[in-house]
Amino acid sequence: MTTTEQPLLLAAVTLLSALHMGLQTRRVGRSRKKFKIFPPTVTGPPEFQRTFRAHQNGVEFYPMFLVVLWTCGLFCNEALAVVGGLVYIVAREMYFTGYSHSAEKRLPGFYLIIIVLLTLSTITGISITLSLLDKYLKIKVI
Amino acid sequence: MTTTEQPLLLAAVTLLSALHMGLQTRRVGRSRKKFKIFPPTVTGPPEFQRTFRAHQNGVEFYPMFLVVLWTCGLFCNEALAVVGGLVYIVAREMYFTGYSHSAEKRLPGFYLIIIVLLTLSTITGISITLSLLDKYLKIKVI
Amino acid sequence: MTTTEQPLLLAAVTLLSALHMGLQTRRVGRSRKKFKIFPPTVTGPPEFQRTFRAHQNGVEFYPMFLVVLWTCGLFCNEALAVVGGLVYIVAREMYFTGYSHSAEKRLPGFYLIIIVLLTLSTITGISITLSLLDKYLKIKVI
Repeated sequence: MTTTEQPLLLAAVTLLSALHMGLQTRRVGRSRKKFKIFPPTVTGPPEFQRTFRAHQNGVEFYPMFLVVLWTCGLFCNEALAVVGGLVYIVAREMYFTGYSHSAEKRLPGFYLIIIVLLTLSTITGISITLSLLDKYLKIKVI
Repeated sequence: MTTTEQPLLLAAVTLLSALHMGLQTRRVGRSRKKFKIFPPTVTGPPEFQRTFRAHQNGVEFYPMFLVVLWTCGLFCNEALAVVGGLVYIVAREMYFTGYSHSAEKRLPGFYLIIIVLLTLSTITGISITLSLLDKYLKIKVI
Repeated sequence: MTTTEQPLLLAAVTLLSALHMGLQTRRVGRSRKKFKIFPPTVTGPPEFQRTFRAHQNGVEFYPMFLVVLWTCGLFCNEALAVVGGLVYIVAREMYFTGYSHSAEKRLPGFYLIIIVLLTLSTITGISITLSLLDKYLKIKVI
């Protein structure tokens, strides 16, 4: 691939999401210091528990997010993936910050995360299905 | 890449695996509601613990699965990767459903997961090694 | 892509990292047997807790590592990514082995992990930014 063909914006958003994931990891480390909870302990006061779980939820969703982001970007539409990726990072930040304050405050970010992932994966799923019909059955729906 | 060159089936299986991962996440959420265990709590009655751990195991294996799936699909054989990916998703479902009933019932799915991952990664490892020998040392084994 | 254009070494390092991740999973399984801690239990004597957490930390970092490895390899420099990937695997092994002995002994591996990830992601971030400036604004910095 030449530079002009490479999905550079997609790569940039992906690297940004990894950086944000790293910052979440760091905030758990800081919460450990604040409450003097040293590894391998993973339990503590409610604020630490919420911060710890906020990060864990990010870890659980991250590979799913990457799959949706890249199948969308490579097999459907790069611009859509880039916008969706940025919204996801914002939603993930809302989730983390909200959750560290209270369990309820994680919900707006959580709903936005679900909306982004469902939207991108539905559109991408339809797009890949249409491409498969075209490639293997020579059926052109659109 | 033109549409005919793109690994569309590989992308479809990958998106399907992400959907299945999402459904596992949702089943943990439902188990939370059933037993009234609200975040950030992650402990509860045995059935909840097993459902929670079944999902966690899926989370732990998912990036490894994606690596094996895509290195196999792009550097070895796409059809093999697609079939292996589908078997993995079935095995993962067996694991999750089995584990939610009892710890022992997770084992058939678990063994199938290990067999799929070892088979794909061994074949892919051999294939990449042969390609490396060809590319860098001009040795053609086959 | 023809064989000579494919990032074969990058694929080899990636597959190796997945194998190492699998071996870490297995060591948790062995620690379970040693201390007779059967799933879904995840608590036990300190040595088991440390082994369990060493693996969990590997799981948390693995998708971030894959993102940095592949954005570096595809959008910046493959040789740099390959070397960085190998150092990461060594650092991850130091972390795991160290942590299974004591919480303090995980630190040298941990610092090396952070150095590798920050180095690769910074260089890749700069490289992608320069490519973006060139592609969209026709600004050639170098």
